[in-house]
Amino acid sequence: MSTMKQSKTMTGVITLTTDFGLRDPYAGIMKGVISRFAPKAVVIDLCHYVPSYRPAIGGLWVGLSYRWFPIGSVHVAVVDPGVGTDRDIVCIESDVHQFIVPDNGMAAEIARHLDHRSACRLEIQNLDLNINSPTFHGRDVFAPVAARLWSGELKPNEIGPPVRRLEPSSLPQAEVRDDAVIGEVVFADHFGNLVSNIENPGLAGWHDLSASIAGESVKIVGTYGEAKADETIALFNSFGLLEIARPGGSALSQEGWQPGARVTLLRQSSS
Amino acid sequence: MSTMKQSKTMTGVITLTTDFGLRDPYAGIMKGVISRFAPKAVVIDLCHYVPSYRPAIGGLWVGLSYRWFPIGSVHVAVVDPGVGTDRDIVCIESDVHQFIVPDNGMAAEIARHLDHRSACRLEIQNLDLNINSPTFHGRDVFAPVAARLWSGELKPNEIGPPVRRLEPSSLPQAEVRDDAVIGEVVFADHFGNLVSNIENPGLAGWHDLSASIAGESVKIVGTYGEAKADETIALFNSFGLLEIARPGGSALSQEGWQPGARVTLLRQSSS
Amino acid sequence: MSTMKQSKTMTGVITLTTDFGLRDPYAGIMKGVISRFAPKAVVIDLCHYVPSYRPAIGGLWVGLSYRWFPIGSVHVAVVDPGVGTDRDIVCIESDVHQFIVPDNGMAAEIARHLDHRSACRLEIQNLDLNINSPTFHGRDVFAPVAARLWSGELKPNEIGPPVRRLEPSSLPQAEVRDDAVIGEVVFADHFGNLVSNIENPGLAGWHDLSASIAGESVKIVGTYGEAKADETIALFNSFGLLEIARPGGSALSQEGWQPGARVTLLRQSSS
Repeated sequence: MSTMKQSKTMTGVITLTTDFGLRDPYAGIMKGVISRFAPKAVVIDLCHYVPSYRPAIGGLWVGLSYRWFPIGSVHVAVVDPGVGTDRDIVCIESDVHQFIVPDNGMAAEIARHLDHRSACRLEIQNLDLNINSPTFHGRDVFAPVAARLWSGELKPNEIGPPVRRLEPSSLPQAEVRDDAVIGEVVFADHFGNLVSNIENPGLAGWHDLSASIAGESVKIVGTYGEAKADETIALFNSFGLLEIARPGGSALSQEGWQPGARVTLLRQSSS
Repeated sequence: MSTMKQSKTMTGVITLTTDFGLRDPYAGIMKGVISRFAPKAVVIDLCHYVPSYRPAIGGLWVGLSYRWFPIGSVHVAVVDPGVGTDRDIVCIESDVHQFIVPDNGMAAEIARHLDHRSACRLEIQNLDLNINSPTFHGRDVFAPVAARLWSGELKPNEIGPPVRRLEPSSLPQAEVRDDAVIGEVVFADHFGNLVSNIENPGLAGWHDLSASIAGESVKIVGTYGEAKADETIALFNSFGLLEIARPGGSALSQEGWQPGARVTLLRQSSS
Repeated sequence: MSTMKQSKTMTGVITLTTDFGLRDPYAGIMKGVISRFAPKAVVIDLCHYVPSYRPAIGGLWVGLSYRWFPIGSVHVAVVDPGVGTDRDIVCIESDVHQFIVPDNGMAAEIARHLDHRSACRLEIQNLDLNINSPTFHGRDVFAPVAARLWSGELKPNEIGPPVRRLEPSSLPQAEVRDDAVIGEVVFADHFGNLVSNIENPGLAGWHDLSASIAGESVKIVGTYGEAKADETIALFNSFGLLEIARPGGSALSQEGWQPGARVTLLRQSSS
């Protein structure tokens, strides 16, 4: 797909995705622990504002984003309301990326975006960890395990036994019919843009499309700058997902337009 | 000016200034792309909360801030409502810094703060880029170009033809009269301090100054700690701009005191 | 305590704790200055949302967090309403960490968490600094001093004379009685969890504990996942402090439950 050569000295990074926010020192402390075990690792915040209790949303973000990071990267994702209970933590391996994530729907949502993958369950008691608290595994488990995986000190096969079935993601899948795709808004971003779970079917030969949200028709354009003043538009965003936007304003501010709202994509005529 | 020696091994960094916010993965993805093309580059967030549709405000921030970064730095600025339309992207070069920025007023505002400079227009089709989407040039254009400029893999003269005239900045300039400077509030910061476009004329021999905002007189002091309880003060801030502050509270919370409010600086007597 | 070996190439980092927020370029500019004087230093944000005018809260965060960072780290803490006045800036040294912080209660609060320590006062005029403004010592003093301490270019004994008494912290200490500890909420975090100043006395042999906030009893559990729907619980958090939480909601949203609210820990029976 890309012809632009990447650096020959490309090195994986460690990314962080959590619901910790940036007000408190929690994310910084995870970076401190990583820097103790992998001082040369570059750590990049992916996002720290995943809605709490919506781990699958965080999994979706990671699944949409990981491919933009260097091969060899380790992605840490901690939206983990069950921390310290008997929920599992899993390590997912694709060809060139690794993911450390709780098995609460977040892992399954990430896995849905990976071609070849295997998963294993962390056997915490075998990993020589220092669990100081049952409430902050981001610091005591995820960070040191990610750092040691990144450095190669810990091998994936030392983490624990394979996992055959992950806890399912709570995110709804769009329903693809003959001439329509029925989906819903899955999140709103900083701009008030509403991102749906409808992938671009143009790649599958669909043309002459029209869209609607909550029953209201919305024109499909190529980019935000094509909207007129105060016009709501739909477009396939930079992740290939159908998005409802109101450039200069906020689509989210319209009544009933929010996560969960029904979004429809119609094929006007066959190609 | 400074006598404190900088490190002999000083290396430029890459800074990011956008309107993406920090809730979503957009800034993180730009860093991922940069780390693929320039794994050794240090990336520093300057700010991600430029008001959307106010690119010149972001240009002002970059113009006021860049000098505090190492020589050899590349500054990426993306407040770009016209992404994917026919607006240009330009590379501005000063003696020791480079800037990649849309030509929508943001570039001109940055250029106003540079002594010697030249600009060229990105010829995207000549740069061996992988444009995946018309809506996220931060990821597909700005990040890889900045990384390759930083590493020296791409030379400024390979970017495109020279640009003679930049699209003008929308930011008003203060009007300097014989005994007064008439300006306005250009932004409010995290503390509710109101920063104006009036530069310190003390350097030009002005003394015995008084200030007002929205017609109300405000005492000029040297630093925040000189304010009494609940007192509003004015001072020349760390960028040399006249600022209205209400230490312990917020100047922004006063009715009518907001971006656009008129600010006046008066010279009481000649020096 | 920990048996997990840290990297042999462990290197200290520089952490930042301020009240600057992340909307404006202030924190980024500090990192720019650090990168000029210590280009190889990794800089980690601890937190930038300390309440202004509550420097001791920032000191508490640093005091609770520093131990998770590599030995050899330099911790910069700037909640400094007295910037540019005659308040002092101090450098605190423990065995393996250094702290640069204003002497306004923030320093004393950090020191309370350190076992062996000494402090000296910055003699700014002896440090070959370039003070551009009386209002941004984070940029002009804290950042370059931290970078030069980190690199070893500046030795602690060159900073200034020893300080015998630090300005006291404004944070209240919990009162330990025979069968109860009386404390209060000191801050609320991103999740609306209310963190008190009551340390875990279980380590001192206390058992069969019960807790209350603002006169209302709250069950003590081990981790958040043990709460029933809409139940408020108390637990000893990952820093060992008694915390009131309402998983799935926000303890902060309850009337009267906020910083300053009284928290009590009772021992039901002796062990």
